[in-house]
Amino acid sequence: MVERVLVIGAGLIGTSVALALRERGHQVWLTDRDPATAQLACDLGAGLVAPDLRDAKGIADVAVLAMPPDFVAAGLAIAQECAVADVYTDVASVKALPVSQARAAGCDLGSYVPGHPLAGREKQGPAAARSDLFLGRTWALCPLPETAPSAVDTIADLALACGAVPLRVDPRTHDEWVALVSHAPHLVAVAVAARLAGPGVPARALQLAGQGLRDVTRVAAGDPALWTQILAGNAGPVAAVLSAVAADLDAAARELAQAASGGLASAADAGLASAADAGLASATGAGPASGLSAVTSLLGQGNAGVARIPGKHGGTSPELAVVQVVLADQPGELARLFHTAGEAGINIEDIRIEHSPGLPVGVAELSVRPSAVAGLLDAMEAGGWPVRR
Amino acid sequence: MVERVLVIGAGLIGTSVALALRERGHQVWLTDRDPATAQLACDLGAGLVAPDLRDAKGIADVAVLAMPPDFVAAGLAIAQECAVADVYTDVASVKALPVSQARAAGCDLGSYVPGHPLAGREKQGPAAARSDLFLGRTWALCPLPETAPSAVDTIADLALACGAVPLRVDPRTHDEWVALVSHAPHLVAVAVAARLAGPGVPARALQLAGQGLRDVTRVAAGDPALWTQILAGNAGPVAAVLSAVAADLDAAARELAQAASGGLASAADAGLASAADAGLASATGAGPASGLSAVTSLLGQGNAGVARIPGKHGGTSPELAVVQVVLADQPGELARLFHTAGEAGINIEDIRIEHSPGLPVGVAELSVRPSAVAGLLDAMEAGGWPVRR
Repeated sequence: MVERVLVIGAGLIGTSVALALRERGHQVWLTDRDPATAQLACDLGAGLVAPDLRDAKGIADVAVLAMPPDFVAAGLAIAQECAVADVYTDVASVKALPVSQARAAGCDLGSYVPGHPLAGREKQGPAAARSDLFLGRTWALCPLPETAPSAVDTIADLALACGAVPLRVDPRTHDEWVALVSHAPHLVAVAVAARLAGPGVPARALQLAGQGLRDVTRVAAGDPALWTQILAGNAGPVAAVLSAVAADLDAAARELAQAASGGLASAADAGLASAADAGLASATGAGPASGLSAVTSLLGQGNAGVARIPGKHGGTSPELAVVQVVLADQPGELARLFHTAGEAGINIEDIRIEHSPGLPVGVAELSVRPSAVAGLLDAMEAGGWPVRR
Repeated sequence: MVERVLVIGAGLIGTSVALALRERGHQVWLTDRDPATAQLACDLGAGLVAPDLRDAKGIADVAVLAMPPDFVAAGLAIAQECAVADVYTDVASVKALPVSQARAAGCDLGSYVPGHPLAGREKQGPAAARSDLFLGRTWALCPLPETAPSAVDTIADLALACGAVPLRVDPRTHDEWVALVSHAPHLVAVAVAARLAGPGVPARALQLAGQGLRDVTRVAAGDPALWTQILAGNAGPVAAVLSAVAADLDAAARELAQAASGGLASAADAGLASAADAGLASATGAGPASGLSAVTSLLGQGNAGVARIPGKHGGTSPELAVVQVVLADQPGELARLFHTAGEAGINIEDIRIEHSPGLPVGVAELSVRPSAVAGLLDAMEAGGWPVRR
């Protein structure tokens, strides 16, 4: 069983692994090339700062290499040289590259279980880490022919301890799948966001941005250096997906350009006629045929694709309830709200504030445990806030 | 001033407008081609079911046409024929098409203010409506040369009453901007989602999907019939953006394919050497040069594009500074922090809390105006919180 874990690399993923394992009572050591980063992670409760690896022989049952893909093989070589653990794993989002590098570097493959927890955020560093980052997420394990079965079992236990669901898949298939569900979508989001920075796009145009654009482009805020590495490490599979997406978009663009230059007037007339036929149009009525067969077909396939994505992790944690309250946008208003909740013994787990600077009111969305909802509403009502029950 | 409003089309947007206006004490009438839809909206508190339009002469100050773009001109013609209001507006997400159709249909353009509130959800129908849907959102107003200035003022008042921020822009520019920030991004998200439905993609591959894919593809769940209409109604501007995105993705795909076939081995070697040089790799360390100049450049432009999107949630507003503070996770701790800030006269514009339920500490990220940073740090230090300057 896994009891003592050494996390090498105290970034978002490494610190989150450490936090998750600490919650389960494991003994966790942390180290990072930057001592201040390791110290911050430990200040957040992620474990103890590990000694220099050369003085850390046998310190752990498992060493987790939590570093970008290009560094994994070198990190593994050093950690194995220092014999810091019995079993080694990594968390890099590509697998064929570090595996081939580890093989080339002469690492011991019997004690190495290539891994990849499917979780992340666009923020970096230990301050962004969360102990629940892996809850319900898939954790890919990509054992090699040389990997000892007991080592695979050990890392599967580690993944389970973090609340994740282990999934065994060979490194090459793993890379094809993540190209499809992560790496190519990332670069597509980037391409959409890049248009917004183009010349001739005024700031006023961005005032028309809604939640859809924010969602589509959110991942594009990720670190370009890290993502260049990830994409370089999975170049072939990513290229195949991107090329197919580009072809679909190009076909849609050509069909739309054709409609704009020729077919639009007649489509417009058809729309007007059908609307008049219908008397009064319904807001949910289906539109007239537009002749955009490629676009319509793509939209349908898009529906089908979204429906295949398992689970929802969008938005709020499912075990928390959200209470909305309208606030005046002035100093002290939130303080009064939190004070009121605190007086009532209610812990607000999370808060989101929706408002525009300068607008007289905002909406605060307070996340609390469901058992605390009634008490929070009572306290808010007593404090004079308008409450919706 | 606007007092009596007739909403024609009781879908998501129409019912949300009605709910928002009801909250401000306006008298609201609703109608829909489907009487049950109108009744449901009214049962939700959105107003009263309107009489047949032929019996509704002068019933309202403003009529809001809340229907898909293709139906707007016909709806306007009928509503004006029945003289149900003094001023008319619509909420369709394209503007040049309904404007040209209304002109062709001989509608009175003096009393018509084309409009578009930038708000929506993937859900349809009155049950999904929210009175706060427009809070802090932009509401585009696209008056024509013929539109009476007093009519524009009336619809600006209506937008403000819904909590939105009116923005005047001509119909053609509006359509170019929404192509960039909404319509093209929608179809790009669809193209990503469509890949997931392709042949040869096993369900297990989707187990590797993370939050990034869910965000990128969320909008692709939208109604294909409605979106075909929207895209057909803005075909030219959408085609231009899509074609540019497709070209960027194709260039990235070609560069990646080249790296995969030739340059990858040497890139891998370079990575291994640089990692070994660095001794122990940091999780946040920059990667070695990969030779992927087009990809890296696109990633950088993506960062720049995301940073231009205004508003909260999905990147911090560029005009606000962020201060991090480590908090004990206990009732009253945030209240004490806000109280301290309020006492010092500092308005906290936004807050995000990074913590896991049950963890003893969390990190609060406080967004304040840059001029307030020093004062906030002083106040926090005086209050006993560890401060990093």
